[in-house]
Amino acid sequence: MKITPPDPGSASWKRRAYSVIFESDTRAGRAFDIMLLVAICFSVLAVMLESVRPIDARYGPILRAVEWFMTGLFIIEYLLRLLVVRRPLAYALSWLGIIDFLAIVPTLASLLSVGSRNLIVIRTLRLLRVFRIFKLGQFVGEGEFILTALKASRYKILVFLTAVLTLVVVIGTLMYVVEGGQNGFTSIPKSIYWAIVTLTTVGYGDISPVTVLGQTLASVLMILGYAIIAVPTGIVSAQMATPARPAAPAFKQVICHVCQATEHRPEAEYCWHCGEKL
Amino acid sequence: MKITPPDPGSASWKRRAYSVIFESDTRAGRAFDIMLLVAICFSVLAVMLESVRPIDARYGPILRAVEWFMTGLFIIEYLLRLLVVRRPLAYALSWLGIIDFLAIVPTLASLLSVGSRNLIVIRTLRLLRVFRIFKLGQFVGEGEFILTALKASRYKILVFLTAVLTLVVVIGTLMYVVEGGQNGFTSIPKSIYWAIVTLTTVGYGDISPVTVLGQTLASVLMILGYAIIAVPTGIVSAQMATPARPAAPAFKQVICHVCQATEHRPEAEYCWHCGEKL
Amino acid sequence: MKITPPDPGSASWKRRAYSVIFESDTRAGRAFDIMLLVAICFSVLAVMLESVRPIDARYGPILRAVEWFMTGLFIIEYLLRLLVVRRPLAYALSWLGIIDFLAIVPTLASLLSVGSRNLIVIRTLRLLRVFRIFKLGQFVGEGEFILTALKASRYKILVFLTAVLTLVVVIGTLMYVVEGGQNGFTSIPKSIYWAIVTLTTVGYGDISPVTVLGQTLASVLMILGYAIIAVPTGIVSAQMATPARPAAPAFKQVICHVCQATEHRPEAEYCWHCGEKL
Amino acid sequence: MKITPPDPGSASWKRRAYSVIFESDTRAGRAFDIMLLVAICFSVLAVMLESVRPIDARYGPILRAVEWFMTGLFIIEYLLRLLVVRRPLAYALSWLGIIDFLAIVPTLASLLSVGSRNLIVIRTLRLLRVFRIFKLGQFVGEGEFILTALKASRYKILVFLTAVLTLVVVIGTLMYVVEGGQNGFTSIPKSIYWAIVTLTTVGYGDISPVTVLGQTLASVLMILGYAIIAVPTGIVSAQMATPARPAAPAFKQVICHVCQATEHRPEAEYCWHCGEKL
Repeated sequence: MKITPPDPGSASWKRRAYSVIFESDTRAGRAFDIMLLVAICFSVLAVMLESVRPIDARYGPILRAVEWFMTGLFIIEYLLRLLVVRRPLAYALSWLGIIDFLAIVPTLASLLSVGSRNLIVIRTLRLLRVFRIFKLGQFVGEGEFILTALKASRYKILVFLTAVLTLVVVIGTLMYVVEGGQNGFTSIPKSIYWAIVTLTTVGYGDISPVTVLGQTLASVLMILGYAIIAVPTGIVSAQMATPARPAAPAFKQVICHVCQATEHRPEAEYCWHCGEKL
Repeated sequence: MKITPPDPGSASWKRRAYSVIFESDTRAGRAFDIMLLVAICFSVLAVMLESVRPIDARYGPILRAVEWFMTGLFIIEYLLRLLVVRRPLAYALSWLGIIDFLAIVPTLASLLSVGSRNLIVIRTLRLLRVFRIFKLGQFVGEGEFILTALKASRYKILVFLTAVLTLVVVIGTLMYVVEGGQNGFTSIPKSIYWAIVTLTTVGYGDISPVTVLGQTLASVLMILGYAIIAVPTGIVSAQMATPARPAAPAFKQVICHVCQATEHRPEAEYCWHCGEKL
Repeated sequence: MKITPPDPGSASWKRRAYSVIFESDTRAGRAFDIMLLVAICFSVLAVMLESVRPIDARYGPILRAVEWFMTGLFIIEYLLRLLVVRRPLAYALSWLGIIDFLAIVPTLASLLSVGSRNLIVIRTLRLLRVFRIFKLGQFVGEGEFILTALKASRYKILVFLTAVLTLVVVIGTLMYVVEGGQNGFTSIPKSIYWAIVTLTTVGYGDISPVTVLGQTLASVLMILGYAIIAVPTGIVSAQMATPARPAAPAFKQVICHVCQATEHRPEAEYCWHCGEKL
Repeated sequence: MKITPPDPGSASWKRRAYSVIFESDTRAGRAFDIMLLVAICFSVLAVMLESVRPIDARYGPILRAVEWFMTGLFIIEYLLRLLVVRRPLAYALSWLGIIDFLAIVPTLASLLSVGSRNLIVIRTLRLLRVFRIFKLGQFVGEGEFILTALKASRYKILVFLTAVLTLVVVIGTLMYVVEGGQNGFTSIPKSIYWAIVTLTTVGYGDISPVTVLGQTLASVLMILGYAIIAVPTGIVSAQMATPARPAAPAFKQVICHVCQATEHRPEAEYCWHCGEKL
C-alpha cells in the first residue's frame, strides 16, 4: 500500500501540510526534513549520553528534558502524519509508519515504567528515520543505486554466505577437536565464534590457537578469509559496473535514396544531409 | 560418472522416487529438498549443542535422540538413493554420494564406540549437503557464476598466494632474527604464523612486535597487507565484470566453392571475395 | 581565487622566482620542489624523534637545531612566495597559503612558549605540503583520477556511511543492553566504539563480548562488516572502471526555424523533421 | 642483459643442458624445474624446523644433513648454469643469478662461522627461486597479467600510499597529544605505529585508546581505514577490467550501389547481398 496524498477535494491546509511533511520538493518541505534530522540526532544523542554514568549524574535532568521535548515533537508529527494522509491505517502499517510509531513508544512506555532499559534499543531505532531524509536532492538516485546493486546480487551473496557459514562451522568444529577446552575452545559454538572472528579478519585475540596444528589451521583460515573477501567485493563491483541497460540503437535503419546518407534519427522523416523525404 | 535416472522401463514408483529425491522441478521434489535442509540444520545444531557442557548436562538425552532420529532419516534416504539410481556404484563413489555416506557414518561408528570425539568434525560435514539445495530455483546460475569466476581466476590466485606465502616466510624469518625469542617470536614457524596474522589484517595481538625495528617491519607488512588485498579483489572483480563470452563470431559456416573464402556474414548470399553465389 | 603569476611587466627576477617556486616545468622548479620535499621530511622526522625520550635526551639540541634551521628555510620560502605572487592576500588565504603558514607558526609560537605540546600536531601538518610535489610529472593526472572518482562517488559513500553509522549505533546499544557494564560495555558510546572496532574488522580485543547472546550478535556484526566492505569497494571500482565521460551528446546546437525540432546530427544541413534547410 | 643460450656452435651437451636448466618446454626441462621446486621447499622447511628448539634437539643432525645435501645440489646447479650460459658474467649479475648465488652463500658462510643467525633470512630468500617455476605452462601469462596491472597502477598506488602515510603521521601525532604516555602512546613513532595498526584494520590491541576523545579519534580512523581500502582495490580492479585494446571496427564503410547493403567485411570486394562488385 502506497502512502497517498489527501483527497484533492479536502481542506487546503491538509494538502499543504501533506506536501510539507511527506514531500521535499518545496522549500518548506526541505526545511521540515532538516528540522526532523536535527531532532532525531539530538534525541539519539540524549539517549547515548544518558547511559554514561558521570554525565547522567550531572546533566541527567537536562537530558531527560531534551528527550521529553523531542518525543513531544515526534508525537505531534506522528499525529499530523496520520491526519493528513488519505488512508491513515495504510500509513500506520507501512514500514515508515511503524518506524515513526516506534520513535514515540519507548518514552511513553517509560511513564508506565515498563522495561525502560531494554527500550533504549528501540529509541535508537529512530536513527532509521534519517533515511527519510535521503528523499532530499541528490541522494534519491544514489541510495537506490546501491540498493539495486545489492538486490541484484542477493542470491549470489546468499550463496557466498552459505559457503562462509559452512566453512566456519566445519573449521570451528575442527579447532574444537584440535585445541580442546583448555585453550579457550570450550565448545563448538565458541569455536565457531572464534572461526568467524578469524575469517572476517577481526581478530580480537580473546581466544587464539596455542598448539602448532591449531595455529596452522588458523593460518589457513586467515589466508582463506583474506582471499575470499574478493568474492562479495567482486560480485558487487561487477554489478555496479554493469550499465543499467544500453540505450536502444539510436538510428533509423534507412538509407536516403538520393544521397545514400545513413544514421538518421529514429523518428526522422527527412534526410539530414540532403533534405529529401525519406 | 554422471548420476543417471532409473531405466525408463523400471517400476514407476522408482522413477517417481528418483524425481522426488534427485530432482527439484516438481513440487514434491522441492518439498523433499526443503525437508532435507531442515533435517541437516537440526542434526548439526544438535552436534553443536552437545559440545556445550551445561546444555549437554540438561538436554543430553534429547539431543542424542534428535541425532539418532536424524541419522535414521539419513540412512533411509541414502538407501533410497542407492535403490532408485540406475548405477548405484557410480552414485556411491561420486562426490555427492560420499558426502551422503559421511552423514551417516559417525553415528553408526559411535555404536562401536570408535573415536567418537574426532568424528564430530565428520558430522558437521553434513552441512556440505546444504549445497545440494542450491539446485533450487534461482541459485543454480548464481552459484555457478561464482564458481566459474573463481575457476577462471585460479592460476592468477595461485600466483598471488605463492607471492603472499613467500613474503610471509621471508618477513617471518626476518622478524625471528630481529625480535628474538623473548618477545614471543620463539621460532621461525611461529614468526610466520605471526606474519600471516598481520598480513591478513587479523591481528590477534597474542604475539606483537616490541622492538623499534620490529614495529617498523610490522608497519611495512601491515601496509603491504592492506594494499595487496587489492590484487585478489581486482582479479575476481575483473573476472566477474567480464561478460560471459562475446557472442559467437557472427559468421556463416560456409566456404565459397570458388575461392574457398570463409567468414561470410550470416545472411550473405554471395561470396564477399569473388562475388560467386554461395 | 587562483594563485596568479606576477605582472608580466614586473621585475624579471620576480617572474623567474615565481616559475621556480610555484611551477615545476623548469629544471630549477623541479629541483626546488625536491629540496622542499627533503626539508619537509627532515623537519617532520625531527619532530617525531624529539618525542622519543631517550633520543631526545641525547640528541635533543641537534634535533632542535634542525627544527630551527628548517623553520628558517620555510620562513624565507613563505616570504618569497608572498613577494612574487601577484596578489599576496589571495595566496595567503588560499588552502596552500594557509598550510604554508602553518608550517612556520608552531616553531615561532614556541618562542613565546605557548602550548608547544599541542603545536606538534600542527608541525606534522607540514606533511600536507608533500602533495604540492604531486604537481611533478606523472602524478598530476593520477592524483586527479583518484580525487575525481572519489568526488563522483561522494553521495554514494555518504549514504553508505550513514547506513554504517546507523547500524553501529543500533547494534552498539543492543550490546550495551545485552552485555551490560561488567563486561566492558559500560555505556552506549563505549559500546558504539566497540561496534566500530568490530564492524571495521579492526578488533583490538580491549572490549569483547562474553555472553552467548553477545557473541552471537558480534558474529552477525562481523559477517556484516566483512560483507559490506564490498559496497564502498564496489562503488569506487565501478566509478574508476567507467570511462572518463561518454562522448559529448552527438547533436548540433541548433533549432529548426520552421518546426522548432532540435537534436540534429552534428553535420546535418537539413531538418530531420520538416526537411527545411537548417 | 638477457641470459643467452650457448653459442649454436658449442658442444651439443651444453646446448642440451641449457635447454634442460633454463627452459621448460621440453619434458626434461619441466622435470628439472619440478625437482628444483621440491629441493627449494625441502631446504626452506629444514631452515624453519631447525629454529624450533625441541625439533632441533631431536632431529638437528638430520636437518643439517638435508641442508648440506640441498646446498650441494644448488652449488652444482649454480656451476652448471654458469657453465652452459653464453655470457656467465651477465647471468651472475642478473637478478636471477644473484638469487641463485644467495641460495648457496649462507651454508658456505656457516663453514667460516660468520653471523650464521642473521643468514637464516638469506636462506629463506631461496623461496624467491620458486618464481622461476612460473615459467611453467599457464602461469606465464597470469603472473604477467598481475604485474602489468600493478605496474600500470604504480603512480596511483604511490599517491594513495603518500596520502595514507600523511594521514597516519598526523593522526598518530594527534593521538600522542590526546592520550599521552600513560596509555601506551609513549612517543610519536609509537603512536604512528598504532595508527598504522588501526588504519589497516589489523588491530593488535597491544596499544588501544582509553580516553573518550582518543576513542572517538580512533573510531574516525577505523572508518576511514575501512572505507579507503576501496581506493587501491578500485584502482587495481579498474586496471584489470580494462581490455587490452578494443579491436578495430569490423566493417567496410561502403554501401552497395545496387542493393544498398552495408556492413561488408573490411576486405570485401563484392556485396554479400547481391554479389555486385563493390
